[in-house]
Amino acid sequence: MDVYLSGEIHSDWRERIVRGAQGLDVRFSSPVTDHSASDDCGAAILGEPAEQFWRDHLGAGVNAIRTGTLLRAADVVVVRFGEQYKQWNAAFDAGQAAALGKPLITLHPPEHDHALKEVDRAALAVAREPEQVVEILTYVLEGTLPGA
Amino acid sequence: MDVYLSGEIHSDWRERIVRGAQGLDVRFSSPVTDHSASDDCGAAILGEPAEQFWRDHLGAGVNAIRTGTLLRAADVVVVRFGEQYKQWNAAFDAGQAAALGKPLITLHPPEHDHALKEVDRAALAVAREPEQVVEILTYVLEGTLPGA
Amino acid sequence: MDVYLSGEIHSDWRERIVRGAQGLDVRFSSPVTDHSASDDCGAAILGEPAEQFWRDHLGAGVNAIRTGTLLRAADVVVVRFGEQYKQWNAAFDAGQAAALGKPLITLHPPEHDHALKEVDRAALAVAREPEQVVEILTYVLEGTLPGA
Amino acid sequence: MDVYLSGEIHSDWRERIVRGAQGLDVRFSSPVTDHSASDDCGAAILGEPAEQFWRDHLGAGVNAIRTGTLLRAADVVVVRFGEQYKQWNAAFDAGQAAALGKPLITLHPPEHDHALKEVDRAALAVAREPEQVVEILTYVLEGTLPGA
Amino acid sequence: MDVYLSGEIHSDWRERIVRGAQGLDVRFSSPVTDHSASDDCGAAILGEPAEQFWRDHLGAGVNAIRTGTLLRAADVVVVRFGEQYKQWNAAFDAGQAAALGKPLITLHPPEHDHALKEVDRAALAVAREPEQVVEILTYVLEGTLPGA
Amino acid sequence: MDVYLSGEIHSDWRERIVRGAQGLDVRFSSPVTDHSASDDCGAAILGEPAEQFWRDHLGAGVNAIRTGTLLRAADVVVVRFGEQYKQWNAAFDAGQAAALGKPLITLHPPEHDHALKEVDRAALAVAREPEQVVEILTYVLEGTLPGA
Amino acid sequence: MDVYLSGEIHSDWRERIVRGAQGLDVRFSSPVTDHSASDDCGAAILGEPAEQFWRDHLGAGVNAIRTGTLLRAADVVVVRFGEQYKQWNAAFDAGQAAALGKPLITLHPPEHDHALKEVDRAALAVAREPEQVVEILTYVLEGTLPGA
Amino acid sequence: MDVYLSGEIHSDWRERIVRGAQGLDVRFSSPVTDHSASDDCGAAILGEPAEQFWRDHLGAGVNAIRTGTLLRAADVVVVRFGEQYKQWNAAFDAGQAAALGKPLITLHPPEHDHALKEVDRAALAVAREPEQVVEILTYVLEGTLPGA
Repeated sequence: MDVYLSGEIHSDWRERIVRGAQGLDVRFSSPVTDHSASDDCGAAILGEPAEQFWRDHLGAGVNAIRTGTLLRAADVVVVRFGEQYKQWNAAFDAGQAAALGKPLITLHPPEHDHALKEVDRAALAVAREPEQVVEILTYVLEGTLPGA
Repeated sequence: MDVYLSGEIHSDWRERIVRGAQGLDVRFSSPVTDHSASDDCGAAILGEPAEQFWRDHLGAGVNAIRTGTLLRAADVVVVRFGEQYKQWNAAFDAGQAAALGKPLITLHPPEHDHALKEVDRAALAVAREPEQVVEILTYVLEGTLPGA
Repeated sequence: MDVYLSGEIHSDWRERIVRGAQGLDVRFSSPVTDHSASDDCGAAILGEPAEQFWRDHLGAGVNAIRTGTLLRAADVVVVRFGEQYKQWNAAFDAGQAAALGKPLITLHPPEHDHALKEVDRAALAVAREPEQVVEILTYVLEGTLPGA
Repeated sequence: MDVYLSGEIHSDWRERIVRGAQGLDVRFSSPVTDHSASDDCGAAILGEPAEQFWRDHLGAGVNAIRTGTLLRAADVVVVRFGEQYKQWNAAFDAGQAAALGKPLITLHPPEHDHALKEVDRAALAVAREPEQVVEILTYVLEGTLPGA
Repeated sequence: MDVYLSGEIHSDWRERIVRGAQGLDVRFSSPVTDHSASDDCGAAILGEPAEQFWRDHLGAGVNAIRTGTLLRAADVVVVRFGEQYKQWNAAFDAGQAAALGKPLITLHPPEHDHALKEVDRAALAVAREPEQVVEILTYVLEGTLPGA
Repeated sequence: MDVYLSGEIHSDWRERIVRGAQGLDVRFSSPVTDHSASDDCGAAILGEPAEQFWRDHLGAGVNAIRTGTLLRAADVVVVRFGEQYKQWNAAFDAGQAAALGKPLITLHPPEHDHALKEVDRAALAVAREPEQVVEILTYVLEGTLPGA
Repeated sequence: MDVYLSGEIHSDWRERIVRGAQGLDVRFSSPVTDHSASDDCGAAILGEPAEQFWRDHLGAGVNAIRTGTLLRAADVVVVRFGEQYKQWNAAFDAGQAAALGKPLITLHPPEHDHALKEVDRAALAVAREPEQVVEILTYVLEGTLPGA
Repeated sequence: MDVYLSGEIHSDWRERIVRGAQGLDVRFSSPVTDHSASDDCGAAILGEPAEQFWRDHLGAGVNAIRTGTLLRAADVVVVRFGEQYKQWNAAFDAGQAAALGKPLITLHPPEHDHALKEVDRAALAVAREPEQVVEILTYVLEGTLPGA
């Protein structure tokens, strides 16, 4: 099972999921999580444009080669919304996943519930902690529940 | 060939198919057939909601991550309707399989024929016994008929 | 907006929705709800087969020309599960609607909640009374709530 | 041409576009922009659940019947990100539009450029003012430029 | 309802259907049934090629602009196999209709049953006479059976 | 029938087709054929960027809102390659039309045959003069040949 | 590369292709070519129906589980029309392949050219001998021409 | 990751990419780049037609079996426009890639920028040198930037 881990890149949620899922038949993928590499990749490879807007545009294009390919190849998409930042790209990925018919799991604290209600409505599960994502994947792949 | 075995979870029909198909190049998949795990998975992982309706909703969401993924990955879908229970989820899976263009085999006793006529019409074969499903898979994969 | 009303044919739920929705910009469609015409149509037109199984098969084929066309043309699909009968065809239609990405509204009494949890999970609303379906359509089309 | 106006509901940007586009062959659509009706619609029609999370879930489901239908029917999708609020639903709609291959126009002030770079990269135009959206629609439909 | 009438062009079956369906809300379409125009159209418009194979190729291309467009626009496809000629183009149209998920009605005498079993299996009805097609369309559109 | 006329904008081929097709049930569409408006539209509406590359990018985005919408809505796509200019956008449109399964007619002089062989292979007709396109549309819609 | 060999089952054309393609990276598949097994499979497994029409229907259903799965999984479809028999199933498979966007190669003697012109028009190559199919596959996979 | 290298066949750009990407998890594919084999393949295998137009048509058909299969199987499509020749087939491939939703990278010198603006607008990156394509693939697969 291919699982794409989209969204927040400033906490260790991906590591906690990958570590917890050791032994499961899952291949995880994610965007490039090195923030500065992700911001610079377009200009570093294709040349510095004169304006910041197009610098972002170049970088977003190069990143989309990776993220679009992984998202389309995924069986399940997990999208994390962190406690700060706008993370519109996370919601954008969730929208793509929904339109492509991918099973979607969101991961965020309760204080975002109201703002994320449209995204959560399209999800098959709303988790609070990365360990719950691991438990879902364990159940989905092996049919066993935590503590069982 | 990937074959998804959907429907009734209270008899040994899956075991009879899997056993009979030994030696064929088939990978079988199915929903979680542990009834209580299947009912509890949402609340056990994501937390107990205040109302039973949402408890079922949570569980159905987590199960759908598994069943939807397997159903979309299947080459052939077999749907079993047993002698009791309403098994609307089996008919729901059959409807999804039909809309996705998956070859569909139904498996049920003749007393359900009239009630299942719309589902059977969308199927490429209507079997009465699990062993007939094995014979179909044997013919489909190896071109040989029973007794040949 | 095209709304397909699928499922139970033994109560007046369709009439209550159509009557309640007068004045809304909705075109309703439904399967043939004359039970005996629906059962007989295949044999009456194409000839009586020797066996009942194929009689049902003929009828289900002719009905599917109508129901499949209407379901694919619908913007919204409403599926009613009544208090008796197995209504596997209703769940089958719901499965097709879900796989085709149609917004789905289910309509059934609470005693079916547990048995219908997979179908309800795929729905965007679960109504108990036809008048609630009218209220949803009113809100969806005009943005107004009951009593407003 | 059908144009869906998604996103922020706290300023007059929709009115400015609709007014400016008078005389063009465009039909505009939008989510319900009455904030409290939008929040309450699920519970008001389907009944108050015990928990706020499911209240939001009910409402998001009913709203999705409208927004999903309009978004899929649109030829062009305009998504507005305002100066406050998280507006994850706007980014979610943009993701759906992108995955469905709909031409996308974003509308937001420059201070959101970096945070919206993935969304903007999927757009065919990034506008700052509603009047620019009108000018785009005028050019797209009539081939004339402002001041010409 | 748009109904495409494909296949044999040497008998009056289309006229019998169109005449019988007067008063129904159906728009019929068909390939060009003037045999020599159909054979000559490519060379007459685009110029005579040196070889007969390419003459047929030119003509088939021009005809496919019409037939492909009508077949894709149809809600229901009726395919007639007559008593002589190979009519591979009829079976080819049936294959396209099946793969596109169009409801298919075949129309042929019983002596072709065995040779057409794969095509008939993909059809929702197998009729013997054009009047049966009219009865099916009447039932599908109005819910009434012959003699009722 | 909706026909999109793509490609060369420096000769009167579109006018000759539209004039010749008077009386046929065809709606023609095309990109904006005012060359300078087409080049300037992005910068004129969205603001002048610092670099010519991005000026072209802005304009191509705005034009794609129009051309993509029309191309996807077309039943038939005609692509003209003129005697000069590279016209990669014409070949690009032809590639999109082919991948979308649209019937394609190319229109170009014989000296481009070898260079256009891949595009012509995907076309259902290769015409030399606009009047041949009119004759094809006449045949496709009315079944009559020139001189008949 | 997966190549599906559809059509005539009364000559050794499949063997000639498979033998000739030894050493190429191709996996060939085909319908069950044992004529009597193919005719009997439905009734032998699912039970003898009272009427021959339904016997054929049963068999065609079981065969379609195999052929539909293989055809959808194929990268290239080769369809052979022999010198006798009607072979509507071959043309039906060609129609499915065309609608699914599969590259199609037809294989038939010149005397069928006129009757097969619609099918050939949808093909990317029309071969006369199985050895030409081998040469095409060799070129497609290795880039080398016969005698080179 | 499968990367299809489309376009110009008269320089060593493919070799420079393949060499530079050694060690990355990429499988490259391309059209047959032996110009005369590519031109002759149709006639050499299927027989010489009387006219050059059909000779090109035969060859383009055989080549399309290869190129269409590889393009549809690709995760990423790179299209190179060289300094001479019209290369309409490159733009045609780019159009197909865009319509199929494949991430597209174009590779061409700045003097083609204006003529390629529609193609570049559909691309996620516009490179000038093959080494930049290698750097993009390295970043996409390993997350590292040149010099890092």
